[in-house]
Amino acid sequence: MTDVELTTAQKETLRMEVKALGDQIRALKESKADAELIKEKIAKMLEKKKLLGDEGGGKFVLKCPKGTRDYGPKAMAIREKVLRIVTDSFKRHGAETIDTPVFELRDVLLGKYGEEGGKLIFDLADQGGELLSLRYDLTVPFARYLAMNKVTNIKRYHIAKVYRRDQPVMTRGRYREFFQCDFDIAGQYDAMLPEAECLKVIDEVLTSLDLGDFQIKLNHRLMLEGMFAVSGMKESDFKTVCSSIDKLDKVAWSEVRSELIDEKHIDQNAVDKLQKFVRIRDQNVTASNEELLKFFEKDTETGANASVKKAVTDMRLLLDYCSIYGIDKNIQFDPALARGLDYYTGAIFETVVKGYTMECQSGDDKRNGTASADEISSTNVGSVAAGGRYDNLVAMFSPKKQAVPCVGVSFGIERLFSIMEMKAESEKSTVRTTETQVFVASAQKNLLRERMKLCKLLWENDVNAEMAYKANPKMLTQLQYCEERSIPLVLIVGERELQEGVVKIRNVENRQENDVPLADLIDELRKRLACC
Amino acid sequence: MTDVELTTAQKETLRMEVKALGDQIRALKESKADAELIKEKIAKMLEKKKLLGDEGGGKFVLKCPKGTRDYGPKAMAIREKVLRIVTDSFKRHGAETIDTPVFELRDVLLGKYGEEGGKLIFDLADQGGELLSLRYDLTVPFARYLAMNKVTNIKRYHIAKVYRRDQPVMTRGRYREFFQCDFDIAGQYDAMLPEAECLKVIDEVLTSLDLGDFQIKLNHRLMLEGMFAVSGMKESDFKTVCSSIDKLDKVAWSEVRSELIDEKHIDQNAVDKLQKFVRIRDQNVTASNEELLKFFEKDTETGANASVKKAVTDMRLLLDYCSIYGIDKNIQFDPALARGLDYYTGAIFETVVKGYTMECQSGDDKRNGTASADEISSTNVGSVAAGGRYDNLVAMFSPKKQAVPCVGVSFGIERLFSIMEMKAESEKSTVRTTETQVFVASAQKNLLRERMKLCKLLWENDVNAEMAYKANPKMLTQLQYCEERSIPLVLIVGERELQEGVVKIRNVENRQENDVPLADLIDELRKRLACC
Repeated sequence: MTDVELTTAQKETLRMEVKALGDQIRALKESKADAELIKEKIAKMLEKKKLLGDEGGGKFVLKCPKGTRDYGPKAMAIREKVLRIVTDSFKRHGAETIDTPVFELRDVLLGKYGEEGGKLIFDLADQGGELLSLRYDLTVPFARYLAMNKVTNIKRYHIAKVYRRDQPVMTRGRYREFFQCDFDIAGQYDAMLPEAECLKVIDEVLTSLDLGDFQIKLNHRLMLEGMFAVSGMKESDFKTVCSSIDKLDKVAWSEVRSELIDEKHIDQNAVDKLQKFVRIRDQNVTASNEELLKFFEKDTETGANASVKKAVTDMRLLLDYCSIYGIDKNIQFDPALARGLDYYTGAIFETVVKGYTMECQSGDDKRNGTASADEISSTNVGSVAAGGRYDNLVAMFSPKKQAVPCVGVSFGIERLFSIMEMKAESEKSTVRTTETQVFVASAQKNLLRERMKLCKLLWENDVNAEMAYKANPKMLTQLQYCEERSIPLVLIVGERELQEGVVKIRNVENRQENDVPLADLIDELRKRLACC
Repeated sequence: MTDVELTTAQKETLRMEVKALGDQIRALKESKADAELIKEKIAKMLEKKKLLGDEGGGKFVLKCPKGTRDYGPKAMAIREKVLRIVTDSFKRHGAETIDTPVFELRDVLLGKYGEEGGKLIFDLADQGGELLSLRYDLTVPFARYLAMNKVTNIKRYHIAKVYRRDQPVMTRGRYREFFQCDFDIAGQYDAMLPEAECLKVIDEVLTSLDLGDFQIKLNHRLMLEGMFAVSGMKESDFKTVCSSIDKLDKVAWSEVRSELIDEKHIDQNAVDKLQKFVRIRDQNVTASNEELLKFFEKDTETGANASVKKAVTDMRLLLDYCSIYGIDKNIQFDPALARGLDYYTGAIFETVVKGYTMECQSGDDKRNGTASADEISSTNVGSVAAGGRYDNLVAMFSPKKQAVPCVGVSFGIERLFSIMEMKAESEKSTVRTTETQVFVASAQKNLLRERMKLCKLLWENDVNAEMAYKANPKMLTQLQYCEERSIPLVLIVGERELQEGVVKIRNVENRQENDVPLADLIDELRKRLACC
């Protein structure tokens, strides 16, 4: 999956070999040696050059690091809009926010993301002192924060960038530096109430973003454990079976079946038995959640399994709460939802936006550190918000192994940015990159000081205002600037206006102009800006 | 200045030596060897142990990396308040915002921060691929962004964390990870207009933060060059003389003089001549800026120097513009202001808040990468906002060496957080960490579903609301929670209220309660919350 990347030392060796081959080729040519031999040496040199990649021959290359991007003003405007919607929802639910350093002691991250995830951690160089790594998600730093500060209950959100040395696919929204927006509820509470609020937050955010239809898939760790047990799977195969099952929304059962039997050597009878359970949603697309829960209750085997029973009770209560919150219609119980990470202990969920198609890897959010390139869906943008209950993670950091039950959701915000960018483009809507409300212009020369005085008045009255940084700007240039930037109002200062003690207000959109007495200016602007 | 930090390899060697000495000591004790010899070995072992520092003997230590901190909910509330004030001001002046990756190609940063600064850069480990380093400030990434995207004019702000492997002094607000808030104006404009706006922004932000008196010191690169030339300094000594002169606000002239003559071997006559110019503000504290500018014009030597003439013209114009903006009273021309970095080409400025004393290093902002521990002031919090004009930095990144004139200001926001934290403490003001407006409570059992319905109603009407995650919470616990968190209103659901179709609203502060018909609830809440 990952292209091999060379260390500096390996590159240096290659460069020396290329140079040596170049010398040999020149010598061979000079001595008019066998053409085949020269050809062979050239091929060898080109091969090594290729390995070195598109190095600019030591020339300075002006670029962002691989897998990262700058956000220009337009991208930032969209990013801020998305983040504001997310933050507003988090605050509406009474969440506090925290922040942690961008790097952690390497030991804090070690062994938290499985074998695959661990390889993707960015390490800092050993320059003396502690060994550090860039954070891989916000969940492990959150758990470290809770354990370190002995916090046993908190509803917090955290919006920050995380880092993964993954093979980037930037067109699909997969970066090495990307945002995560996490909302988590830690504390010992009554069953399913925090879960219901997490699902309500997902519903609110996606509704506010106005992205069209979406669906929240729901399952439970104990449902998976129960189904596997009843089918005759070994407990030790839990993780590997989950990872195959999780692909069912993208590949056919036959493929998953053969992966389980032929590659992972799971007992064929167990696999075939499991089919009946994990494909139940697939084969009953229109069945209600309650109908599927009843199926598991009535089935003689799952109905007798304690794990399944607990999972059914939990999910029935959660769905009941969701109906009170008015969000049940978008939630679908799916026994095939398995998610990536190992630390879930209860309900798990994953949200898919239906309307937008985009080549996109599913799940670059925190709960899916081990997503690989083969999990790419070309039919929709994939998971945009996912999470679940993880009751044992904090104890891993606690000296006294004190457990702090947690449930949370992480928004795959990079993908939401991409969707919003696509949306803005398709609707041909103008994206404003500043919040300037008034531009102060002048039609004649030598009015710089008057423009400055007006700007001062506006700024001091909390009106966002700009003027040209020229002593004598051209009127046309000033008006063009306003139209390009969608600045709603222009104040025009002129000799006549000054003498009469008025200012001319121009509406940029309809080009109407009115004189307003200077004394009434701020009131008039407030009135006009309130309706913009 | 910096404690020596050991690499992992060095530590490993030390640990082995300690272990070997331990073995020797045990053997010596067993063989009842000479007590002096044993003592000597023990001393040696303790010395090496000391070098290893307070290692937890391989035990897992739960902490943030050296020089970094978590921001808990309270610190975040203060941080967000400060950032909002700064951001509002930047937007009021029509600035756009951009963001760049937290790391840059190592080559982009190399050679931009002088010898001292360069040592403080955090490198990422070479895990294959590009060599990367964490950003050291926001100015170099900004210049890289402008050159890469061929942007020739932009007014942008950038608020983000930067990283310096400095010796942290956290009680003084010096961290290895800290925020910078930069506002820069790039473009070819008429003289001093962008500078005046930068100073206006400083004035606005510090006034909004309500930190009491502050002073913006002003000087000009050409004023320094002119004074040095007239005094007979060598051009090649510019940087080193500047760095001594810059200390004049903290140490006496005699000390600076001896540093220049004895340590830096600057000609004694030149130093004594320079005194007359750089100490003019010091010796004329109450003189107006215009009086000092006139002094330089009338002095036969500086008055004839082209650099000084240009600097006087520039500063006179800038001060004129500042008086139009109504901010001249806080600005003081000081020929001794030299600032740290080399890249300034015009006006330079630095802001000091007067009212707060705090052991604080001066200038951990971007324009002062080489600040060292001896620049510590115990009399005030030091520079909180500084900047200047740098017209040649962008050209360093431009393939065609295209210059983009820039001027900007950087707020030392970490110090502002500390001041605001001190202020909040001294005023004993409560810092709210959530924006919850309404808590939904119940006095009796079995009203969970009713509370949930009310929460749904509130959330859907954009009211920030919370309830207890318990089926049957105690009334007292619920009210205490509201008082602790300064939640202004409580809705109380009860059997009677349900029957009568009303909800009880309780004002947490004055404990008054009123019944409101459910149909009028949202209107009533809006009315009450508008005045909170």
